Amino acid sequence: MRSVSIIGIGQTPVGELWDLSARQLAYQAISAAMADAGVDRADALFLGNMLSGALLDQEHMGTLVADFCGLRGIEAAKVEAACASGRAAVRVGTMAVASGFHDIVIVAGIEKMTDTVGKDTTAGLATAADAEYEALHGVSFVGLNALIMQRYMYEYDVPLDAFAGFSINAHRNGANNPNAMFQDEIGLQDYMRAPLISTPINMMDSSPVCDGAAAVVLVPTDWVSEFATGHHRGAVHILASASANDTLAVHDRKDPLFLEAAYISSQKAYHQAKVTPEDLDLFEVHDAFTIMSALSLEATGFARRGEGWRMAHDSEIGLHGRIPISTMGGLKSRGHPVGATGVYQIVEAVQQLTGSAGANQIKDARLAMAQNIGGSGATIITHSVH
Amino acid sequence: MRSVSIIGIGQTPVGELWDLSARQLAYQAISAAMADAGVDRADALFLGNMLSGALLDQEHMGTLVADFCGLRGIEAAKVEAACASGRAAVRVGTMAVASGFHDIVIVAGIEKMTDTVGKDTTAGLATAADAEYEALHGVSFVGLNALIMQRYMYEYDVPLDAFAGFSINAHRNGANNPNAMFQDEIGLQDYMRAPLISTPINMMDSSPVCDGAAAVVLVPTDWVSEFATGHHRGAVHILASASANDTLAVHDRKDPLFLEAAYISSQKAYHQAKVTPEDLDLFEVHDAFTIMSALSLEATGFARRGEGWRMAHDSEIGLHGRIPISTMGGLKSRGHPVGATGVYQIVEAVQQLTGSAGANQIKDARLAMAQNIGGSGATIITHSVH
Repeated sequence: MRSVSIIGIGQTPVGELWDLSARQLAYQAISAAMADAGVDRADALFLGNMLSGALLDQEHMGTLVADFCGLRGIEAAKVEAACASGRAAVRVGTMAVASGFHDIVIVAGIEKMTDTVGKDTTAGLATAADAEYEALHGVSFVGLNALIMQRYMYEYDVPLDAFAGFSINAHRNGANNPNAMFQDEIGLQDYMRAPLISTPINMMDSSPVCDGAAAVVLVPTDWVSEFATGHHRGAVHILASASANDTLAVHDRKDPLFLEAAYISSQKAYHQAKVTPEDLDLFEVHDAFTIMSALSLEATGFARRGEGWRMAHDSEIGLHGRIPISTMGGLKSRGHPVGATGVYQIVEAVQQLTGSAGANQIKDARLAMAQNIGGSGATIITHSVH
Repeated sequence: MRSVSIIGIGQTPVGELWDLSARQLAYQAISAAMADAGVDRADALFLGNMLSGALLDQEHMGTLVADFCGLRGIEAAKVEAACASGRAAVRVGTMAVASGFHDIVIVAGIEKMTDTVGKDTTAGLATAADAEYEALHGVSFVGLNALIMQRYMYEYDVPLDAFAGFSINAHRNGANNPNAMFQDEIGLQDYMRAPLISTPINMMDSSPVCDGAAAVVLVPTDWVSEFATGHHRGAVHILASASANDTLAVHDRKDPLFLEAAYISSQKAYHQAKVTPEDLDLFEVHDAFTIMSALSLEATGFARRGEGWRMAHDSEIGLHGRIPISTMGGLKSRGHPVGATGVYQIVEAVQQLTGSAGANQIKDARLAMAQNIGGSGATIITHSVH
């Protein structure tokens, strides 16, 4: 198996980008990544996207984007795993290079969730859950996460403001990220006054509906020296990568408060990289909801069960804390264009590892982990890069 | 790169299967393939599917199906490239094994197109075309193919009944396939009397809307001897595999009558397999419309431009002809559950190569090619197996 490296990254700002269509967003991220890598061609494009069929009446997005980017004649496909679509595409791109099928592969994540005429974004997001056993009965995707959070608070006797620190940390970091959707810090009072969306999830527990695209260029590690990357400290290498699934429906799980797929995929990633949680310099968590941050930290070995919420403080998860998370704003503040998020996380990890993270730079960051979740924990993909 | 082999196949009958949901169809094909291969576990499932988001309000189908099949904890993802989704999933599964990421990989294709409450299947199929530059203006997917066929008849002075032989051949072969949707032979009069759908495409030029699922089990070729396959002549090996794209919108092509992506992907496949068209014992074409059979035969080296329609006769494409096509009924007679078709074609090639094709058996078949088309020629994936 060939080792795989990232030689270029690109991203659009995240937000309600009404003047940019899906293909235009993808083009901006891909052309930026190709320029960053110094390549003018590619052998394949794998596109992470969840909602183009439901919201844009457009499938076949892989070829659409390849065509629009002038990448004709190459392999192109869309990879979908709900909100983990972006990282599922990174997995496929990595396999394409590792196997020798391709040498230069672009992986992009794109989601266009706003300004979709006559479509229901909430219904679209519910397609990540089980249509017949969950969504049909009226529960939204936020509703499912609210049920998990409610149960967590009950089981572990957790106070209402316990999750505020995750949101405060994300916003503090997002304030320094020019690509973040929200660039304002928030305080405890802002959190406590935020309107409820689905009890107990409030506006500050929840990531926003938005548009965005991110891209990376992958090559065999042996080829890296042939490219002049735009980074001060050269290419970033994919050290470990694993994907695991759990039941799609939350009610089918033995314990809905434990992210089994996060445990499996992170244990595989630790094993492949020959590291322990203590070796990581940062961890990009999938903080679509603050409860997911708590559960991820528990399942990946940073906290005991029922104790993840206690880490929502600067000394634990801040930029100078024990394990910095959401270092560029996370899904909460940077934004969560669902099929793009898994690629944004990798792009941001590369920024950290190449000293390009600006005011949010983790000093001497050498090893990063990033975890992308599809559904309410049903597909979880973990990467380690260094 | 590890060589990859197919050790098990499974398929459901194709038809309007109102009593089976998408997950049940997938389960039937996957469990049949696993039984055929003699495996009770897998490392990953890659699912080809196009329309679950548009017609079933269900994304995240990879994990849904893995969960329903009892394959928990493994990697799962959906791969989508319109009507080439099934074969795009075969590509990804092959990369997963070839790279060493996984050892036992299931690739399934599933589509549920009938009995979809309150959904418009024609609008769903149009998501394979360019939503902004084609579908928005009202052209359906049949309409796009009709424009291509009309132009072909004009440019090459082709008579109206010239395409009948493709349909007659498909139905003759489908009559002997117990999994085919249509098991009745047709004659020239049936073709000529068929109602027009979109001039000049009539009912007999066009593949049906239907449900179905097919699956294969992939392992490294080195592992084959460890499994007791259900086939008389053992495993089938993936000799060549290539995917190419063209412009999504037909009007953007230099020549809408030449399938550039079929040419590129078949030339790559010939090169990888070190064979020429003359070496093939059968060719599973993507006969979604009869015009596509003619164009495929031209672009893959069996006929000169404008001459593909002249091959629509038994001596050319019949079971004993120069290059047998649609040997189990093709998309026209077996049926075209869009995201599953690319996997059905591989399953049928395996039947031929292992002497399991029943009355349609090609004598001493040793080398098969199968080509899967997404959109009106925008994504074309070619495999050679032996």
